[in-house]
Amino acid sequence: MVLASASTVRATLLRSAGIHPEIVPAHVDEDEIKRAFRAEGRSALDAAIALAEVKAMRISRHHPGALVIGADQILVCGAEWFDKPVDLDHARAHLRTLRGKAHGLATAAVVVRDGQRIWHHGATPMLTMRDFTDGFLDDYLAREGDDVLTSVGVYKLEGRGVQLFSRIDGDFFTILGLPLLQLLGFLREHGVVGT
Amino acid sequence: MVLASASTVRATLLRSAGIHPEIVPAHVDEDEIKRAFRAEGRSALDAAIALAEVKAMRISRHHPGALVIGADQILVCGAEWFDKPVDLDHARAHLRTLRGKAHGLATAAVVVRDGQRIWHHGATPMLTMRDFTDGFLDDYLAREGDDVLTSVGVYKLEGRGVQLFSRIDGDFFTILGLPLLQLLGFLREHGVVGT
Repeated sequence: MVLASASTVRATLLRSAGIHPEIVPAHVDEDEIKRAFRAEGRSALDAAIALAEVKAMRISRHHPGALVIGADQILVCGAEWFDKPVDLDHARAHLRTLRGKAHGLATAAVVVRDGQRIWHHGATPMLTMRDFTDGFLDDYLAREGDDVLTSVGVYKLEGRGVQLFSRIDGDFFTILGLPLLQLLGFLREHGVVGT
Repeated sequence: MVLASASTVRATLLRSAGIHPEIVPAHVDEDEIKRAFRAEGRSALDAAIALAEVKAMRISRHHPGALVIGADQILVCGAEWFDKPVDLDHARAHLRTLRGKAHGLATAAVVVRDGQRIWHHGATPMLTMRDFTDGFLDDYLAREGDDVLTSVGVYKLEGRGVQLFSRIDGDFFTILGLPLLQLLGFLREHGVVGT
């Protein structure tokens, strides 16, 4: 089993659950795929599934017979899709846009074997940010620092980031970036995980 | 602010969110209160709220002016209420009963100040265990060991315990034992946490 992702959160989620895939990050031009999907009026979840598949396909070529897990997550607020912030100013702009609104985390996982997609799952948990003050935002970014740049959502729910929210609807593992329960179900069916 | 709970999970949830209460565990005869509520045909959630309140009240006496947080969680499956297992045989019996069924985690938090309850919140997330094999159960208990005895549910979702489940519905923080989002909302209203 191979995890085609550079995300430490995804690797940690799997390892905590007792699953130890080989980690082989795939390098994919995500922007190009997202632009194409947007241009065609496709949903963020469709784009996330496509990106997860492209990543898994790329790694599958070099790992014949292996189950290769790809995953992706896109943050959607209204008509806008968000990328990971590149610096703290960018992060501040993101959080100002998300403040007081609900956003979705379109999250996909795909399993590929020998260049064939044999499983996929997608879901879009919804999270609502409260109308926090600018003072709170400054304090939050000052305390969290560059840590917020590692997540598309500019927050870690396992930390102080939970203070940004008034409401969270959806599966926690999916929110963290991997639909773990569904993936485990698939892995059991394939005899990779004990039943 | 005081947390009237011996639960390391609850203390960790608050600390991770940036909240640092004094920890003063309350010692309460939980069985007596549960028996009384059961005898009166009251719900597990009513009992959890009462237990959370009793714990907070007990500590409030010695901390005038402080906001004292009490919390409790009761596992309910069908007509049965479950207590924390006392040893691994007990844990095995619990998991055999829960296997293949949905159960609720009736979870309550209460805030008391100067002997008055000023806030409470209760919710019952539902979790469904899959129909795992006896072999899986033996392996799970052998690997987790006494760690499973620290939780009323005999599992840690943050670990291998997630493999026990086919479905999880409800807020993750509440499942872990504290309705954190709602408590943070209350603490903001009282100026204890920044807005």
